[in-house]
Amino acid sequence: MKNLKTGVVGLGRLGRVHAHNIRYQIPGAELTAVCSIVPAELEYARSELGVAAVYADYKEMLAHADMDAAVIVTTSSEHCWQIEAALDAGKHVFSEKPLGVDAAQCKQAEAAVERHPELTFMLGFMRRYDKSYAYAKEKIDAGAIGTPYLVKATGIDPEALVDGAIRFAKNSGGIFLDMAIHDIDLMRWFLGCEATEVYAMGATFKHPEFRAAGDDETGVAVYRFENGAMGMIHVGRTAPYGYHVETEIVGTEGTIRISAVPEKNQARLYNQNGVCAECVGSFPERFAEAYLTELQEFVDCALTGRAPGVSVYDGTKSTAIGYATTEAWKTGAPVKILP
Amino acid sequence: MKNLKTGVVGLGRLGRVHAHNIRYQIPGAELTAVCSIVPAELEYARSELGVAAVYADYKEMLAHADMDAAVIVTTSSEHCWQIEAALDAGKHVFSEKPLGVDAAQCKQAEAAVERHPELTFMLGFMRRYDKSYAYAKEKIDAGAIGTPYLVKATGIDPEALVDGAIRFAKNSGGIFLDMAIHDIDLMRWFLGCEATEVYAMGATFKHPEFRAAGDDETGVAVYRFENGAMGMIHVGRTAPYGYHVETEIVGTEGTIRISAVPEKNQARLYNQNGVCAECVGSFPERFAEAYLTELQEFVDCALTGRAPGVSVYDGTKSTAIGYATTEAWKTGAPVKILP
Amino acid sequence: MKNLKTGVVGLGRLGRVHAHNIRYQIPGAELTAVCSIVPAELEYARSELGVAAVYADYKEMLAHADMDAAVIVTTSSEHCWQIEAALDAGKHVFSEKPLGVDAAQCKQAEAAVERHPELTFMLGFMRRYDKSYAYAKEKIDAGAIGTPYLVKATGIDPEALVDGAIRFAKNSGGIFLDMAIHDIDLMRWFLGCEATEVYAMGATFKHPEFRAAGDDETGVAVYRFENGAMGMIHVGRTAPYGYHVETEIVGTEGTIRISAVPEKNQARLYNQNGVCAECVGSFPERFAEAYLTELQEFVDCALTGRAPGVSVYDGTKSTAIGYATTEAWKTGAPVKILP
Amino acid sequence: MKNLKTGVVGLGRLGRVHAHNIRYQIPGAELTAVCSIVPAELEYARSELGVAAVYADYKEMLAHADMDAAVIVTTSSEHCWQIEAALDAGKHVFSEKPLGVDAAQCKQAEAAVERHPELTFMLGFMRRYDKSYAYAKEKIDAGAIGTPYLVKATGIDPEALVDGAIRFAKNSGGIFLDMAIHDIDLMRWFLGCEATEVYAMGATFKHPEFRAAGDDETGVAVYRFENGAMGMIHVGRTAPYGYHVETEIVGTEGTIRISAVPEKNQARLYNQNGVCAECVGSFPERFAEAYLTELQEFVDCALTGRAPGVSVYDGTKSTAIGYATTEAWKTGAPVKILP
Repeated sequence: MKNLKTGVVGLGRLGRVHAHNIRYQIPGAELTAVCSIVPAELEYARSELGVAAVYADYKEMLAHADMDAAVIVTTSSEHCWQIEAALDAGKHVFSEKPLGVDAAQCKQAEAAVERHPELTFMLGFMRRYDKSYAYAKEKIDAGAIGTPYLVKATGIDPEALVDGAIRFAKNSGGIFLDMAIHDIDLMRWFLGCEATEVYAMGATFKHPEFRAAGDDETGVAVYRFENGAMGMIHVGRTAPYGYHVETEIVGTEGTIRISAVPEKNQARLYNQNGVCAECVGSFPERFAEAYLTELQEFVDCALTGRAPGVSVYDGTKSTAIGYATTEAWKTGAPVKILP
Repeated sequence: MKNLKTGVVGLGRLGRVHAHNIRYQIPGAELTAVCSIVPAELEYARSELGVAAVYADYKEMLAHADMDAAVIVTTSSEHCWQIEAALDAGKHVFSEKPLGVDAAQCKQAEAAVERHPELTFMLGFMRRYDKSYAYAKEKIDAGAIGTPYLVKATGIDPEALVDGAIRFAKNSGGIFLDMAIHDIDLMRWFLGCEATEVYAMGATFKHPEFRAAGDDETGVAVYRFENGAMGMIHVGRTAPYGYHVETEIVGTEGTIRISAVPEKNQARLYNQNGVCAECVGSFPERFAEAYLTELQEFVDCALTGRAPGVSVYDGTKSTAIGYATTEAWKTGAPVKILP
Repeated sequence: MKNLKTGVVGLGRLGRVHAHNIRYQIPGAELTAVCSIVPAELEYARSELGVAAVYADYKEMLAHADMDAAVIVTTSSEHCWQIEAALDAGKHVFSEKPLGVDAAQCKQAEAAVERHPELTFMLGFMRRYDKSYAYAKEKIDAGAIGTPYLVKATGIDPEALVDGAIRFAKNSGGIFLDMAIHDIDLMRWFLGCEATEVYAMGATFKHPEFRAAGDDETGVAVYRFENGAMGMIHVGRTAPYGYHVETEIVGTEGTIRISAVPEKNQARLYNQNGVCAECVGSFPERFAEAYLTELQEFVDCALTGRAPGVSVYDGTKSTAIGYATTEAWKTGAPVKILP
Repeated sequence: MKNLKTGVVGLGRLGRVHAHNIRYQIPGAELTAVCSIVPAELEYARSELGVAAVYADYKEMLAHADMDAAVIVTTSSEHCWQIEAALDAGKHVFSEKPLGVDAAQCKQAEAAVERHPELTFMLGFMRRYDKSYAYAKEKIDAGAIGTPYLVKATGIDPEALVDGAIRFAKNSGGIFLDMAIHDIDLMRWFLGCEATEVYAMGATFKHPEFRAAGDDETGVAVYRFENGAMGMIHVGRTAPYGYHVETEIVGTEGTIRISAVPEKNQARLYNQNGVCAECVGSFPERFAEAYLTELQEFVDCALTGRAPGVSVYDGTKSTAIGYATTEAWKTGAPVKILP
């Protein structure tokens, strides 16, 4: 069994999750290099992960490191050129979402992927690998709910982490690009179809800082899809109870709903507050297993040549829909989404 | 203790519920007369409810029956003039929703109510009297969720009853007028504010008969409110599991969600399907207690002069919003709602 | 339609519930007399319920009041002779549980019931008329869980009401007679079989006053039934979250569980405590509808001659099992239950 | 960072789980040897896990393999001598539950552990490492439910796997030794106290083969603990819905209940069966993460000298209680449990 020698680019919060998983948890993967522009992150890689080959320069890593694959966990605006460079250097590529921050970038990444059919490319839509979401998809593909025609998605970050969101508000691209990209991907995935039109609005009732930064605290959007199906999204940043990701897929013969109670675990407290489920606190907690599973999928695909479940086009499409949603939100008018 | 002598107009499915409740279940009320254009309904009133004073003509009932109050459960298009006639005859009036089928009618009813401040008028938005909804409102008024800024409402009729809906499709006024009026009322009630704009769309995936009749099987709409709050509505006619009414009120400090599982009762079956809650089958089953409570409220108000929790303006406003939603759905464009 | 003229004996908390229901809520019933040894209760009946025929003496009421039926809601120790006296006076009888406080009394009541096959006798095991319990029984009778072979029952009074229980501890007959009689009845009802042996124990961790009074705060018991089936009971007096009644019936093909979350209603709060269901506060709240339904059943049976679902033997058997449980608890040894 | 060189003994179903976890998933662990009397299992280790050092003889492995620790996953009757041999050979030891199959064996293992305070010994009560159970314990230790005084435990294997249980019935030691050992451990753990007396009974309604083998399909037991606390256990082998492990800890200030719905994941199906949660199918599925966490704990403890959360005495005590429960079940009389 050959191992996939893997370099991780970017060692922020999520980068560390991926690096740790590759180092310790993914059969078939080996962590052979890391790259970061933050010296402390390289030191972390050396001391905690035992990686000798650390790089401050991405291109240098691509040129010199002993690696078959690059896992890109950098700032969104860097993804596309880094994807292209890695592919052109003959590396398999896993990139965190979003694919890019504008359509032109995405098209460039798309072209690079198409140029290298011999290499595996996968985008980090990890929710698809969460066991509840994967189960829902399997059930739907098996006909359990007939034809799906409406997806209702909720994604709310915890109020406990709102300060970071406020600081980041000016540069986030707005709530829909920042928060809704996973929900957009899930709608497309469950409906098996592309969105053609969107209408959106936002509101800010708790932290006027968002409004001051040209952003909103909460956003809602509705979508029309090619086949007539519909989508509803509610994203926010201020859930007092934790991190709330919930998705409902309505079909002609039934409905599947995931995480109506965003439970931390299976314990329930019966006390003076009633019967309570404590909630998960953050996305790394909620999707810890999914982050592992998606990277295992990437490694398996790279080693075997099998195509992963998430393609570059999922990134292009989701980004385009995210931009259209943002335009709808800003203009107050329905916006057509071009194919 | 004086009883409120009450006449019921219309003895269809819901009329019988009200008549039975007045006859047997409402302290302070007495069923003294009924009116129906269907002879069999009058016979039912005589034999089953023991009412001697039965009328085929509404005006005759108003003129001759020994009654203090009229409970109107007729076809929607008849409500407004019957309300006016009863008030002008000095009767307290309870009318089923909707108030009327167009703005002009509603205004006429409004004027009649304003002409008779000495009489009680109440509209049948019974969901407000359901114990879960009433509890939610109390909690919200007590500050449990801070400022409410988003209401997400779902109302789906059971597939088991879809044949009736198909037959009625041509004359229903469309899915939003037919199905969303309670949800619209609840949004206004929980947000304490009026809607200013709506965008809507519909879909039909299971029963093309709806589309053929110019209607849709499922509709979604989003609303903007005066104070910046938002609303999302999903209505449908084809829930395979029963009658699904669910409402969520999102506030700055918490959320209240009602009936995420539209459970029939508190029993759960653990069997080869997993752990299952059977669902309620219809609105009379789901809201049986609320129908009783709202009429008790009407009777108490009429006897004491206290103002009921639902006013004629709730009817006017909800109807206007229902029409605007329908226009948005038909045109595909956002529609302003005039104050 | 003839009405059942009904006298209510005892107007404490539950007596008032029954009297109010008979006065206002039960088609076919008429409240024609009341009896109480507490003058204020008679005054309540006169002023609030409009009953003219009020009696301080039970025998006098039986002799003189215009009544077809007696509803007995007095102290447990009075039930049996009052049942006998009413039956011998030609009245239908509904008696609150327990049937009596010892076997001799119960046998005397049994004999009186057997002496008057022309009269309806019904015991107040209202849980059987709760819609969730009735649904479970129907499902089980229809074979939904195969052969039931284990019942697990929980009944815990709220800590909020513990002071009354402490005051009453010396005279309660002990926690099993006081608290488990409904659970015992439900075990028998669901298993369709009689208990033959019991083992029990108790504990007191919060309020030593119970132990000081020879009682316990919490009790658990296990039962063997004739056909080999088993029962487990957990009763207590100190639930911090409200009134908790839960029952599970395990069968060869499935399980039905009722009220695992003793929810107050269908609203859920999502707040800093997580996702919470507030709980019901007391048995009158939990079983309000069941109290109504059982009395309706009694009235319908008395008017039509149909046999009610609860018989005098259900009272005798449950009381015998309660005594055996108490003996097991006191002695620490398994106790046989005689047929 | 030094790795813990680990040999796995026994490569049945659970042995493979542990071997796989050590090979791929546990930071700090290295799979250096395996031992099995089944040739195919050694072949599996060679080809799938890449282990060169494979042994058919346990003592030979201890003598020659390059290993710091032994993970014992053999037949229960072999555990104790293998524990002793490994410790005497200077290896840290992780052993699957139960510790042994009789008291004498357990004492022997206890002595060996006491002889080697320099070595880590840990028993595989993995439920303690499940995130829901660990959360409950933390909450309880933090005072969230006051003083715990009653544990109610349910453990039912799926009907889907009953054939294996039937074949194994004659040699299982009976349902309580076979099924209740985890529940017994959890009771002791949550109550922080030892059991002093037990009463038990069993029933067989579906598969008479169990009765024929001197076993029962379902067992219930109640326990008294030193401090007056109580325990209730319900174990079975025929859950039609899956693998059902549920535990409730009742305290003076609240209750924690774990897995009342033994959900497979967070998806819910709304279909003609109502609203359903599919259930987990087996213990490896339910406790996959706990198996990983417990072994990580063992490895961390062995590397750092920290004492693990499960000791050899937990094994001795649980086994003794299991035997006492079996005696109670067989005799129908309460059985004292010696300290």
